[in-house]
Amino acid sequence: MRRNKVGLWLIGALGSVSVTVLTGALALRKGLISETGMVTTSEPFEPLELIPVADFEFGGCDIRQSALLDSAYRLFQETRAIDLRILKAVEEDLRDLDNNIARGTARNCGDAIEALADCSARQDVSLLQEVELIRDSLRTFKMEKGLDVLVVINLASTEPPLAMQDFHHDIDAFESRLGANDCQAIRASTLYAYAAILENCPYVNFTPSNGALIPALVQLAKSRGIPVMGNDGKTGETLVKSALAPMFLWRNLEILSWEGFNLLGNMDGHVLDHPSNCESKLKTKDQVLQQILGYAPHSQVHIHYVPSLDDQKTAWDFVHFKGFLDAKMSFQFVWQGYDSLLAAPLILDLARMAELAKRRCESGLMAHLASFFKAPLGVSEHSLNGQFDLLAEYVQHVKKKSSRKLRTVG
Amino acid sequence: MRRNKVGLWLIGALGSVSVTVLTGALALRKGLISETGMVTTSEPFEPLELIPVADFEFGGCDIRQSALLDSAYRLFQETRAIDLRILKAVEEDLRDLDNNIARGTARNCGDAIEALADCSARQDVSLLQEVELIRDSLRTFKMEKGLDVLVVINLASTEPPLAMQDFHHDIDAFESRLGANDCQAIRASTLYAYAAILENCPYVNFTPSNGALIPALVQLAKSRGIPVMGNDGKTGETLVKSALAPMFLWRNLEILSWEGFNLLGNMDGHVLDHPSNCESKLKTKDQVLQQILGYAPHSQVHIHYVPSLDDQKTAWDFVHFKGFLDAKMSFQFVWQGYDSLLAAPLILDLARMAELAKRRCESGLMAHLASFFKAPLGVSEHSLNGQFDLLAEYVQHVKKKSSRKLRTVG
Amino acid sequence: MRRNKVGLWLIGALGSVSVTVLTGALALRKGLISETGMVTTSEPFEPLELIPVADFEFGGCDIRQSALLDSAYRLFQETRAIDLRILKAVEEDLRDLDNNIARGTARNCGDAIEALADCSARQDVSLLQEVELIRDSLRTFKMEKGLDVLVVINLASTEPPLAMQDFHHDIDAFESRLGANDCQAIRASTLYAYAAILENCPYVNFTPSNGALIPALVQLAKSRGIPVMGNDGKTGETLVKSALAPMFLWRNLEILSWEGFNLLGNMDGHVLDHPSNCESKLKTKDQVLQQILGYAPHSQVHIHYVPSLDDQKTAWDFVHFKGFLDAKMSFQFVWQGYDSLLAAPLILDLARMAELAKRRCESGLMAHLASFFKAPLGVSEHSLNGQFDLLAEYVQHVKKKSSRKLRTVG
Amino acid sequence: MRRNKVGLWLIGALGSVSVTVLTGALALRKGLISETGMVTTSEPFEPLELIPVADFEFGGCDIRQSALLDSAYRLFQETRAIDLRILKAVEEDLRDLDNNIARGTARNCGDAIEALADCSARQDVSLLQEVELIRDSLRTFKMEKGLDVLVVINLASTEPPLAMQDFHHDIDAFESRLGANDCQAIRASTLYAYAAILENCPYVNFTPSNGALIPALVQLAKSRGIPVMGNDGKTGETLVKSALAPMFLWRNLEILSWEGFNLLGNMDGHVLDHPSNCESKLKTKDQVLQQILGYAPHSQVHIHYVPSLDDQKTAWDFVHFKGFLDAKMSFQFVWQGYDSLLAAPLILDLARMAELAKRRCESGLMAHLASFFKAPLGVSEHSLNGQFDLLAEYVQHVKKKSSRKLRTVG
Repeated sequence: MRRNKVGLWLIGALGSVSVTVLTGALALRKGLISETGMVTTSEPFEPLELIPVADFEFGGCDIRQSALLDSAYRLFQETRAIDLRILKAVEEDLRDLDNNIARGTARNCGDAIEALADCSARQDVSLLQEVELIRDSLRTFKMEKGLDVLVVINLASTEPPLAMQDFHHDIDAFESRLGANDCQAIRASTLYAYAAILENCPYVNFTPSNGALIPALVQLAKSRGIPVMGNDGKTGETLVKSALAPMFLWRNLEILSWEGFNLLGNMDGHVLDHPSNCESKLKTKDQVLQQILGYAPHSQVHIHYVPSLDDQKTAWDFVHFKGFLDAKMSFQFVWQGYDSLLAAPLILDLARMAELAKRRCESGLMAHLASFFKAPLGVSEHSLNGQFDLLAEYVQHVKKKSSRKLRTVG
Repeated sequence: MRRNKVGLWLIGALGSVSVTVLTGALALRKGLISETGMVTTSEPFEPLELIPVADFEFGGCDIRQSALLDSAYRLFQETRAIDLRILKAVEEDLRDLDNNIARGTARNCGDAIEALADCSARQDVSLLQEVELIRDSLRTFKMEKGLDVLVVINLASTEPPLAMQDFHHDIDAFESRLGANDCQAIRASTLYAYAAILENCPYVNFTPSNGALIPALVQLAKSRGIPVMGNDGKTGETLVKSALAPMFLWRNLEILSWEGFNLLGNMDGHVLDHPSNCESKLKTKDQVLQQILGYAPHSQVHIHYVPSLDDQKTAWDFVHFKGFLDAKMSFQFVWQGYDSLLAAPLILDLARMAELAKRRCESGLMAHLASFFKAPLGVSEHSLNGQFDLLAEYVQHVKKKSSRKLRTVG
Repeated sequence: MRRNKVGLWLIGALGSVSVTVLTGALALRKGLISETGMVTTSEPFEPLELIPVADFEFGGCDIRQSALLDSAYRLFQETRAIDLRILKAVEEDLRDLDNNIARGTARNCGDAIEALADCSARQDVSLLQEVELIRDSLRTFKMEKGLDVLVVINLASTEPPLAMQDFHHDIDAFESRLGANDCQAIRASTLYAYAAILENCPYVNFTPSNGALIPALVQLAKSRGIPVMGNDGKTGETLVKSALAPMFLWRNLEILSWEGFNLLGNMDGHVLDHPSNCESKLKTKDQVLQQILGYAPHSQVHIHYVPSLDDQKTAWDFVHFKGFLDAKMSFQFVWQGYDSLLAAPLILDLARMAELAKRRCESGLMAHLASFFKAPLGVSEHSLNGQFDLLAEYVQHVKKKSSRKLRTVG
Repeated sequence: MRRNKVGLWLIGALGSVSVTVLTGALALRKGLISETGMVTTSEPFEPLELIPVADFEFGGCDIRQSALLDSAYRLFQETRAIDLRILKAVEEDLRDLDNNIARGTARNCGDAIEALADCSARQDVSLLQEVELIRDSLRTFKMEKGLDVLVVINLASTEPPLAMQDFHHDIDAFESRLGANDCQAIRASTLYAYAAILENCPYVNFTPSNGALIPALVQLAKSRGIPVMGNDGKTGETLVKSALAPMFLWRNLEILSWEGFNLLGNMDGHVLDHPSNCESKLKTKDQVLQQILGYAPHSQVHIHYVPSLDDQKTAWDFVHFKGFLDAKMSFQFVWQGYDSLLAAPLILDLARMAELAKRRCESGLMAHLASFFKAPLGVSEHSLNGQFDLLAEYVQHVKKKSSRKLRTVG
């Protein structure tokens, strides 16, 4: 059986996460590193016959212009997170990938993001033309590399939250607004998602930007047989929160306050230092606790830009809780991880799972991937164990199906 | 339908946990505090029709002699954990309970524990006579209070570990050794458990002492239709560990080292400051990580006696882990809780669940209670979520059975 | 030699700090507690012959109306910080002090504070009349108690920062504005300080409110022979900062970032939750680091209101620094202390030292008290050790003077 | 004026600290790094005209045999602490230094250290002959490089504590024991120190080994005009402790407990994992607190070997203290630093200061260097600020002397 030829298209291709995805994938291909950090390489996923990381073709787009290798050296030299011999060993390959990076758009992404763009936004171009340009880059890449499937994953900087209007909920209304070039209610992430779906590309929104997978586009994906999922990769403080909050629930220890403080110094932190962009992030982080507990303790999540930390996110969470005889106790944790290194392997996992979903003709939201997201679309389960149960059930289900098919075939 | 009349017999009745159990139960009975911290009062347990905390008759035994009220004031005034108006309000009731505290035994418990005893051990008495004395206190209490069931829970100080020999695995061999008065291989906790089972009392070992539920006694319990469970209540650092370790497993983040430091200043800490007693504790704590992860990272658990902390346990755990591109990251937590206040509500939960098991004619190990223990007997599941699934399944099972019975009856 | 009869007048007399000052002073008088936490009771201060805490007469004013004992029970029952038997033992004395609490003013203190006032502000009254009312309460209290000296200490909630204008720097200009009833540029704290100085009362501003000791009033104090000092008591995170920052300086470890997060839940926290009031606090906290280091690292101080903590302030500081070979390292600390209990003993210290200064006919700023303040007026020394050297030198100086006098007299 | 030609001889030349000293010095010489972390390069030290780091000749000895460059790559690749381009740039120079590393001795250092030795100890050789061999290496190096002064610094692994006997206190008695080849009461560090002093080399003991500067040798140094100093470099947890403990003292906050936990994974940690070697370390750490406070709180210092941390020491300290109204509060800190990078710059500082002392004909203990040591010989001042005052006074003293000399000369 011929395997699908698969590509992975990264929006925000020059950002830290993307650079880490590419460096890691190339290092894996060369056998230089272990698969540590990737979920789908562990034993339970074997029967799914996911695409090997080594077989992916990588491309993407960005609003900035720079060489991937420079970005990689800047990132890893600053944080000193990885053994630089690894980077050395994939230099050539990274350099080659520069050819696969197209020009991106920052349409209506707010000042903080637009300030990053190396080229002024294409203001002379209508939204529909912008969509055409994106579709064109996807088509070209698929053709050049002879791809059966191209998975598109959004890693661009967080946009300000988009206020949902009626037309965001209906694909026809949305398309007519798009045709009318209504620039205020449509963001770059919306255009990317729309273009991807029209090009039959599975689409994953790893950012908190709520403009990406508006209900109208989920509807479109469903009707066109395209699997999609989001929002906002769950990599650090929220991951821990979703693993720990159930413990308090199960033991009937009442959480009085849960305060979280995230310090980080990369581009992500820089953009999130702008209140409007940060608002998106805080929204996706905020609901986790209440959803798990069934009540809303005093809880605030703070993000602060501390340049010296670069990619090394440091988070302190303080949990105040009440126990027996109404006594107050506390729990604190400090999470020190490299933001991009925590996110990158999940991108590879999501790409593999999205390709499988496409192969299996699933359409609309991939709810079984909830554990990867802070605000999983269409899923009310927020506890990490509950979300992993969803994933395990999916794996079982696929396994049974394929063994049945095998039996039939046999 | 007449409800069972139920008693709870606490071994180590004057210790901090027991005093907290009693203070809390009396306060609950008066409606002075919430049920926070108790697992079995939450909504999913309602269909089980567990015995209300208010209906328990409390008794127990101790090797020390003192008034419960004094112990309570000492405990809560030192730690300032609770609102002293609560203690004030239950003064009378606590004083009444002094009448229900019998003399206990510290047979072969090691110097650290024997030093605590107010009366010299009854050396003139054979092991079999010791068993008779224990059985007699249980019988007397049952009779005096007119009890249908008396649940016995071991809260005594941790004994040094008992090296298992062949005869610990066979009830006949055990009984013949007991008859031969072989004092070295049998500890106080063994005598208590044996006596309880012979008196048809469900027995729970909340301590790490491995002498309590030796295989021979589990066998006896099974054959006599008595539900039993242990070992070592999971209340703090290990609880968090069993909630967090699965996160690292699921995300394929390799744990390199997990070092735990527990500071505490109560009697428990004092006894655990003795190497041989501490050994028991560390043994039950130690296996959790490896069982969950499937591999053994560098991991040590340390317990230190810091008198000024009294009952306020403070634990620091440092977790070093490897992520994508083999980068090292870390996670730390600090747990600050009142040891006795974390343990006490679980005692009430266990008593209620043990009574239910007796009522339902279950016998032998109550594996569904694994989540309450650091080293659950007969259960290989160590992740907190897996253990709560066991509990939830049991609740479902009981519910179905009783609704079926109701239908039949109806 | 007859000792001065001394009073202590607390502005914000019903607040947590004041209630703790009074409870503590009464408990000390009864010998119920140790002098732990008071600086001036330690051995080096003995030769100064400071007024014993037991000899103070206490009074004050507040914009709220309530019984001191109620405030004390609310405070200490919520936080469970102290042994309630102490409070019980001073109940009577606290109740007596209610008679010494006059009505205060919240003139131009911002909405957050005015919302706390039990009585609407006296809007019909001119600023000069307000000053007269304050002077009258001070005079009355002095007369009633037969006081030689009345020390006034401001413990009221933090006002929004006052933008300094020319007239704040000149006493004549200030008085003419006061006469013209210019309400916008003069705050309650200014009126209190002015009134105190006119009544020959040493005045200490323990709050961050910069309106209290404006240059014009320092000038007035100097010319009238009144000792004054401020601003903002140094009790927690900033105290630690001023003790630790010199270590980095001495060792030439370059601080890259120092981020501080303060969680607290008392009235102070509530008022500081209002951005304009918080601004004052952050201003006094902010300058410490730069003054000690001689350069300005990335540094932000955050204050968050977490009601469940009540008076138990919890602060996390993250310090990122560079060492040899330009390697980055980090230091974190967590400070968990009772805000009012840390502040209260310093109030007693300051009152004793202010009385001494008055007795010794010192006038203007008491620079030797710099170690007590986050933003010590007229002092550029911000390192804690440097500030303690100032204090030690003062003690030596006074000692020499008095022994010389003794010799002369002798 | 011709400057002295100066050498630095490192005992334990292949260890992490030494490798870092050499890498750093070479990088400084090339202008690749800042002087961050070195104390003596800051402004107040300028008038002392210390030897520039670039002018030192480096040599040393070790019981292991390996290339410096290999050690450096192993160290920095594992910890990823520094930018590897720096190491790349000094490769050649490091390789050249291999020629300057002589064979060392592990005489009577305990099993843990002897196990590290690449060559079996020279058992056939008498102690006196061992001394001759050491003197010979020092003489040879001085001659080859044409050195005026050779500073010797002990960086070897920590020996087990040496029980002091009478003869350790008297140089004649010591020399007769040495002549009698009394191997049990004399350790490698003693032989090194003795040889250095006889060769007129200033000697600094940066390790906790108490055998190095026994009173007899301090006496010898004094009589021969040789400056010496020790013991045990103060680089991490103890540094912080000595900066913070005075704060509690000054504020009269009573420390109840101060518990310290040090995790580290380098050779130092490995050797300290052996109880007898660790004992030395804990002894020097232990006295600091009591000396500063004037009383002894409950305090234990723990060192644990956690291999995955390599050189990245992680320490958690928990401080429990009592404040006003006898309320208990707490302070915790986490120190995460690279052990060798914290120590190395101090070695360069000490070498420069020792050369100055030799030039100024000082002899015996250099008490002004107390701030560099956990257990400064001949100094009872343990607070960091007090120790820096000592250093500042010395600098002032030297400055005055030299300006006077200059005036005289002029």
